Amino acid sequence: MKKSELGLIEWIRSQAGGGAGPGVLTGIGDDMAVLAVGSEQVLITCDMLLDGVHFDSSQASLAQIGYKVLAVSLSDCAAMAALPLAAVVSVALPDGLTMADAEELMAGIGRAARRYACPVVGGDTTSWDKPLAIDVALLGRTDGVEPVRRSGAKVGDAILVTGALGGSLAGGHLDFAPRIAEARLLAQMAPLHALIDLSDGLSTDLHHICTESDVSALLDAEAIPISSAARQRPDPLAAALNDGEDFELLLCTAAADAQKLLSVWPTQSDVPLSLVGQVLEGDPRQRLFLRRGGQTLQSLSPAGYEHFRREGPGSSRK
Amino acid sequence: MKKSELGLIEWIRSQAGGGAGPGVLTGIGDDMAVLAVGSEQVLITCDMLLDGVHFDSSQASLAQIGYKVLAVSLSDCAAMAALPLAAVVSVALPDGLTMADAEELMAGIGRAARRYACPVVGGDTTSWDKPLAIDVALLGRTDGVEPVRRSGAKVGDAILVTGALGGSLAGGHLDFAPRIAEARLLAQMAPLHALIDLSDGLSTDLHHICTESDVSALLDAEAIPISSAARQRPDPLAAALNDGEDFELLLCTAAADAQKLLSVWPTQSDVPLSLVGQVLEGDPRQRLFLRRGGQTLQSLSPAGYEHFRREGPGSSRK
Repeated sequence: MKKSELGLIEWIRSQAGGGAGPGVLTGIGDDMAVLAVGSEQVLITCDMLLDGVHFDSSQASLAQIGYKVLAVSLSDCAAMAALPLAAVVSVALPDGLTMADAEELMAGIGRAARRYACPVVGGDTTSWDKPLAIDVALLGRTDGVEPVRRSGAKVGDAILVTGALGGSLAGGHLDFAPRIAEARLLAQMAPLHALIDLSDGLSTDLHHICTESDVSALLDAEAIPISSAARQRPDPLAAALNDGEDFELLLCTAAADAQKLLSVWPTQSDVPLSLVGQVLEGDPRQRLFLRRGGQTLQSLSPAGYEHFRREGPGSSRK
Repeated sequence: MKKSELGLIEWIRSQAGGGAGPGVLTGIGDDMAVLAVGSEQVLITCDMLLDGVHFDSSQASLAQIGYKVLAVSLSDCAAMAALPLAAVVSVALPDGLTMADAEELMAGIGRAARRYACPVVGGDTTSWDKPLAIDVALLGRTDGVEPVRRSGAKVGDAILVTGALGGSLAGGHLDFAPRIAEARLLAQMAPLHALIDLSDGLSTDLHHICTESDVSALLDAEAIPISSAARQRPDPLAAALNDGEDFELLLCTAAADAQKLLSVWPTQSDVPLSLVGQVLEGDPRQRLFLRRGGQTLQSLSPAGYEHFRREGPGSSRK
């Protein structure tokens, strides 16, 4: 699930229990909802991607767009430490697209589906005289690993991230690897208190964890792993803090468990794991702090990603 | 799930097992996919509704549109004799809509959600400078009733429908009642061999059952219940046969069970139940026959619904 626009998701959440129900273990507000089915748990998320907002069909191929739309939801699945169960895909196809175009789009979806063992079990397609719109709803299963929410971070926890951050809009946002295997491995190696995928950007997504867990957090500027793409930017640290769509993992775990993870991890995975900060006592007025040079402390705001930026009058994002 | 456009759903179905997987009991091609989760079954469907195609925002209120978008998926749930478990909703909001507009839309979704006990547990909203697009993915649960597919119709079965058919585009398509309770009751009273909801129109949806079950079917023209709205039309029978979006149930069951259902049903429900035809041996060249005046037999084609009709060059539907 993505960040709310117009506060609508918050509004839904505030209505009549925010989608509470007898089988609803976790409703709106996490990366996936968690539902009880008999003695099992099933997770669900949805993401709608729109041409000109989340991708630009004049820049990206239909195969890339198809891959991305499923991978975004697969990353939500990683953010709960869940495994994919199945997905359904709805597509609004512009009238100008041919059957071959549509097949290229579906082949991109199929590439992500096969790579992450997520069968596409249903769909709905319509053509219209408007731009391409695609929605994926993805189901997850727990298979022995309890889902990790955003809400369990504890004071004193270490904050870790996978990969290197920033600059994904240079291209990485079209061909990233959802960290499903990494999330499962981490959750099996140590109790994770909170987990989220970096879709909105480190500062914004850490702010989500802080709000849901009612804690604050301190990031060490020098410890944040900065991608080579972000290093090309005028302010690489700002790119690593605020660019969206890295789709890496951000997690909180007890300090001792973090040390254990950091020492063993390189033998388990090629994906880097970095200690970037620690969880502080919650202060609703200030959730995020940044330490530079090991000393100077400054407050940090969630300055997340606003999707693909559109220019021109009448098209600014709310 | 709706009828495929451009044959895309058929293409997906033909690819690499059509979304087959270890937990996939029924993949693409029925009203909902059926998935195994431990010893339980979970069902899923998705429907994307677009302004100018499935509704006209200049004619329908946002509350009506919201109600319809969830009700369409709830009708798919009825078509499997399943109960709703939860739904997620993605919305692409035109830039011009206000927060109050968005709340009215969500309130319409909420009305359907409460009426049919289907919590909305997640969502994704984005604003863009294009028309309203909404996608619902709905999960179903079996709760002791085995899902009824389209594929089990047997030669000699009776064909029944609920309600009265045709003319829904006069307004009924915005405020219909998904037949969830009726489907559950019918499935508990007799073994149903095949079940579908009338979204594309009687002739088209019966053709779906015939294709999936490899049978043919005979309809009795005089037995088809025609709605009062359809009676206002130049050809009421054609309206009842071919208009879409009645969202009534179409079912096949053994002839003896049909007689039992028909005799007991009026004590169970206010929704009419009518015997409209019988299942014949399958002939791939001709799936549908219509009997008039008890004698004359004519072949019938699936002449289903093409959604809301758009006029003007460049906007015709494929």
